[in-house]
Amino acid sequence: MKFLTDDFLLSNNTAKTLYHEYAKNMPILDYHCHIDPKEIYEDRKFENITQVWLGGDHYKWRIMRSNGIDEEFITGGAADYDKFLKFAECLPRAIGNPMYHWCHLELKNYFGYDGVLNPETAKTVWDITKEKLKTMSARSLILSSNVAMIGTTDDPCSDLYYHKKLREEDFSVKVCPSFRPDPALNIHKAGFIDYIKKLTDTVGFQIETVDDVKRAISERIKFFDENGCRAADHGLDYVMYREADKNELDAILKSALSGGEITKEQSEKYATELLLHCGREYAKYGWVIQLHFSCMRNPNSRRFLSLGADTGFDCMAVTDSCAALYKVMDALESDNKLPKTILYSLNPADDEWLDTLLGAFQGTEVAGKIQHGSAWWFNDNKTGMIKQLTSLANLSVLGNFIGMLTDSRSFLSYARHEYFRRILCNLIGTWIENGEYPADIEFAGSLVKDICTNNAKKYFNI
Amino acid sequence: MKFLTDDFLLSNNTAKTLYHEYAKNMPILDYHCHIDPKEIYEDRKFENITQVWLGGDHYKWRIMRSNGIDEEFITGGAADYDKFLKFAECLPRAIGNPMYHWCHLELKNYFGYDGVLNPETAKTVWDITKEKLKTMSARSLILSSNVAMIGTTDDPCSDLYYHKKLREEDFSVKVCPSFRPDPALNIHKAGFIDYIKKLTDTVGFQIETVDDVKRAISERIKFFDENGCRAADHGLDYVMYREADKNELDAILKSALSGGEITKEQSEKYATELLLHCGREYAKYGWVIQLHFSCMRNPNSRRFLSLGADTGFDCMAVTDSCAALYKVMDALESDNKLPKTILYSLNPADDEWLDTLLGAFQGTEVAGKIQHGSAWWFNDNKTGMIKQLTSLANLSVLGNFIGMLTDSRSFLSYARHEYFRRILCNLIGTWIENGEYPADIEFAGSLVKDICTNNAKKYFNI
Amino acid sequence: MKFLTDDFLLSNNTAKTLYHEYAKNMPILDYHCHIDPKEIYEDRKFENITQVWLGGDHYKWRIMRSNGIDEEFITGGAADYDKFLKFAECLPRAIGNPMYHWCHLELKNYFGYDGVLNPETAKTVWDITKEKLKTMSARSLILSSNVAMIGTTDDPCSDLYYHKKLREEDFSVKVCPSFRPDPALNIHKAGFIDYIKKLTDTVGFQIETVDDVKRAISERIKFFDENGCRAADHGLDYVMYREADKNELDAILKSALSGGEITKEQSEKYATELLLHCGREYAKYGWVIQLHFSCMRNPNSRRFLSLGADTGFDCMAVTDSCAALYKVMDALESDNKLPKTILYSLNPADDEWLDTLLGAFQGTEVAGKIQHGSAWWFNDNKTGMIKQLTSLANLSVLGNFIGMLTDSRSFLSYARHEYFRRILCNLIGTWIENGEYPADIEFAGSLVKDICTNNAKKYFNI
Repeated sequence: MKFLTDDFLLSNNTAKTLYHEYAKNMPILDYHCHIDPKEIYEDRKFENITQVWLGGDHYKWRIMRSNGIDEEFITGGAADYDKFLKFAECLPRAIGNPMYHWCHLELKNYFGYDGVLNPETAKTVWDITKEKLKTMSARSLILSSNVAMIGTTDDPCSDLYYHKKLREEDFSVKVCPSFRPDPALNIHKAGFIDYIKKLTDTVGFQIETVDDVKRAISERIKFFDENGCRAADHGLDYVMYREADKNELDAILKSALSGGEITKEQSEKYATELLLHCGREYAKYGWVIQLHFSCMRNPNSRRFLSLGADTGFDCMAVTDSCAALYKVMDALESDNKLPKTILYSLNPADDEWLDTLLGAFQGTEVAGKIQHGSAWWFNDNKTGMIKQLTSLANLSVLGNFIGMLTDSRSFLSYARHEYFRRILCNLIGTWIENGEYPADIEFAGSLVKDICTNNAKKYFNI
Repeated sequence: MKFLTDDFLLSNNTAKTLYHEYAKNMPILDYHCHIDPKEIYEDRKFENITQVWLGGDHYKWRIMRSNGIDEEFITGGAADYDKFLKFAECLPRAIGNPMYHWCHLELKNYFGYDGVLNPETAKTVWDITKEKLKTMSARSLILSSNVAMIGTTDDPCSDLYYHKKLREEDFSVKVCPSFRPDPALNIHKAGFIDYIKKLTDTVGFQIETVDDVKRAISERIKFFDENGCRAADHGLDYVMYREADKNELDAILKSALSGGEITKEQSEKYATELLLHCGREYAKYGWVIQLHFSCMRNPNSRRFLSLGADTGFDCMAVTDSCAALYKVMDALESDNKLPKTILYSLNPADDEWLDTLLGAFQGTEVAGKIQHGSAWWFNDNKTGMIKQLTSLANLSVLGNFIGMLTDSRSFLSYARHEYFRRILCNLIGTWIENGEYPADIEFAGSLVKDICTNNAKKYFNI
Repeated sequence: MKFLTDDFLLSNNTAKTLYHEYAKNMPILDYHCHIDPKEIYEDRKFENITQVWLGGDHYKWRIMRSNGIDEEFITGGAADYDKFLKFAECLPRAIGNPMYHWCHLELKNYFGYDGVLNPETAKTVWDITKEKLKTMSARSLILSSNVAMIGTTDDPCSDLYYHKKLREEDFSVKVCPSFRPDPALNIHKAGFIDYIKKLTDTVGFQIETVDDVKRAISERIKFFDENGCRAADHGLDYVMYREADKNELDAILKSALSGGEITKEQSEKYATELLLHCGREYAKYGWVIQLHFSCMRNPNSRRFLSLGADTGFDCMAVTDSCAALYKVMDALESDNKLPKTILYSLNPADDEWLDTLLGAFQGTEVAGKIQHGSAWWFNDNKTGMIKQLTSLANLSVLGNFIGMLTDSRSFLSYARHEYFRRILCNLIGTWIENGEYPADIEFAGSLVKDICTNNAKKYFNI
């Protein structure tokens, strides 16, 4: 009944054994995150907990906004301590929220504080963390978290300067870029013309036709591959599939580049063509494609105008992605160009059909070629993770799952891997204790280790 | 293992403490129901349990129909006792249905009968309840249920006669009207012309343009506000958002008023304009807007023709409401006219995206300005409530939730607040017992009290 | 903590009592399966476990594919033992998958092997099963499973030869045909012209108009009814409802029969007309209509070309079936021609709205006239069954449920009825132990027996 003990979330002895003896010490492959490689290279330091916690974490901002806190104390100009104090007032009301768990796991694991954060303890926590942060840095946090690999998220035009520097100096943690070509596919969004200009500058040839765009992207994929990239990431609001011929596609591109209005249908045609091109290229290099969808970006125009994107206003959406996703997969599979694929829907109502879809496109390259990505973003809470794991177990082969990612910008969020592992071990441990799986702890432990680390290692060729 | 003890639904000691020492005695704010204020004012009495239970409760009618019972014994002319006996035959087969729990809670709480209802006991129960009903009335039931506030549902044309009378005589329970302007928005439904006539008579000026409709509605809102109204309620089959200019809107209205056929697109344009107008007005008065959606009304034409609306045939629907709801919220937020909002989908598959939407539109007027309404109608069962509470906890801030409502026509249904509170306390108690929240019972208890009563009090300014 | 004991899935004493004393010995009515009546009549024998298990079971094929196994060992030419060995390698990784449970239940129940199947034990299991199979046959498996009725799935053109033979020789198990007229409704799919020719040959008159198709179908329904058929089965990718007049329908049919392209709209019009015709005919004979939907057939074209249909590539779909299904039901109900109906969606996100729909169309012919079919295909796992049962209990009357079906081609899969019954008894037992239902074991046991057998018996008039 004590909060956040060593056996946190582990409700029976088998679960405890699986976690403490098998999962806990496995290295972390955080194959999908948004950490800035520059901060790793320069070994960024932090003055106080507000900088680490509230600097860019829109999960925490949301909780503050749901408590009626003024933006001054969230993204505004209030003093760091005052912001932290406001957060400490809000957190205890967020009972049942994963943020409550993550915050306390982070305070315990990184700062040795195993008490509770609330308005009464805020000053103490501020002081303790301030003191500890003096001896902490991006790299020390990564290393002490037993991280073996970090997959950043990078623009195709990036020169990958910091990735190269890190490789040159033989930093013991693999920091791999991931290829995220969304701006080259989002022909209907503001910034497309500028992005094509940037891409033109990067590749050094004119981009006038869709073939030019493809060639440019292919060149950047090659460059990324040479620099250790193993995966690409496509963030789609929804999945689309709409065919068109070369002439029509070129006309759409030409219109967009001259500032013309692009219809939804046109943008879907262009994006389909590019997505399929990317997929085929990834297959060639043995990369993994990650497809995210069912996201509602910037629904609050007033806040978007004042605060910009990625400030905690994005939401889940219900989208018409099912039929289109089948077609995308089929188109790539038809000419044997389907790369290893991880599918993530932001809407958990999609879990079940996604898990059946996997089974229709598996291949012999690797066990679990087509994956359902870990419960992600709004779903990385206890019930969301259990639901994703259970559905995957029901409808596919859980033992081949590549496990957790943080999707985070923070160096403290490796605690979420611990959270995931405890939940995974408790699920499997409970099955065993209930007689639903043989009590062969050695074998069950090997599956746990596979899901924590080994499967991802194989999957990403690391 | 005994049925329906004092610790019903409370599976551990913390849950028991939270319920018995914190939740149980908190006053009920039943801010959304369909009780007739006339029945309160006239202090309606009931001859027998059939009148109280089977008179208008379509939940119970559904259970009887699912048992193949003839309509004669449901809404037909059979004797009250025979109807009750038929219901007593059906109920035991409805194992796991919340109706089974509510019925027995009501028999225990209001009639002191703690046995089981089945064909063998039906006569006994009939006699006991008949005797007790002699000393019971609408008001005595309300008062003995510790109700502090009742939010009725009222037509904009209502003169609120009974609300006024109740206020005049200082009835100790606040009986507030709620503004439900659906008939003025449903331009595509039968009865629209008649309703506009009624509205015309009420406001005393001609209604020919959309501006006239808006002015009429604004006047009625003002009148309702003067008479204690704190909330409005919009029952949408689905959420729509479709813009149009003034001229087009006036043409649509004109066509409708002259009996012309209204297309789906036209009706959506008109309804969007009116909904936004209402929202802005509510914001002005500090009211709460309630939006209900994903309902399939009267799907069985044969029964609708013979029995009319609201007779237990309405169902959940899958509707395309997600994108439109974001737009409605955004349109109101854009000019800072978004009122406090409670969102309810009848389809529980919408829980998760709704809970993320809340976070994109919160404000500083009150903690939890945008709410996900309590598990409602088809969802107010144990699993539905747990799902709604858990999703809300995962994705928003549970401590700011305004809690339960009955949505009922019956004076006995306050037992559903007890049902909700037991489930809430068990959920929080279990988290604490599992070490997922600190065992600070005083603070957890204060959250429970907030969710039971205090949050709603603040939210509705009561 | 031992795997798969006699109390498998039964977590408390009431659950154990309900299963062992009430459920276990009830006869099985497997009213919906795909067993070949010829195999029953000829009393098919099997040489080895690969023939019984891997011959046509796409659940198992999927698990192998998800492990990266080459098709050679799945549907290809590898030796039977090598296929089995590969499967034994894959199975232990499918932790949490119902296949893991079913396989071991089957090994235990039919072969007396209560160990675990894995690469180390594969040879032993092969030998044991090979030996036992010498004395087993289709009929012995059916009889030893306490099966009282089998509902096969049959083409309207079938002469029901084997059903007749089985009836003639008074085989103690009722083997009833089910009427599955999909090929006559799927006007947009390849093979329609050929099917109409086949139907023409069967009925012996020309089919040129939609009325001709209807007459042909009516004749076949009559023939099936004379041969013991009690149910029809319609496998729809999605539910459609689109009205058209006779002339338009005839033109659509004419176009299709002359090889013209059929639009989606045209095919929906034709299929709606035929579906309603079928429904009215079934009502006349007191048959049951089963409607399946939200299925994605053959999404992987490459595999479809090489392996054909029904080879384990079908998936769940998200379809726009809700509004249309209400209209189909309403159309039949409107002229009092709605037959007993079982609705199955392959997508479990549809459970809740389906369970509310039932309540809008019940009738007095039988308790539970409109049913939500048992968790099916991708949903017949533990969580899927619990979800279906709980939702049904919440929103309808669980006591009237007609229970489980196998939907299987295998003579061993009756173990799934055991699986279902254990889960059912555990659910009800847990409610009773938690004080959510009276501890009247006799009555609860009678409900269990009804759900296992008696309700289906009444429902299908057997």
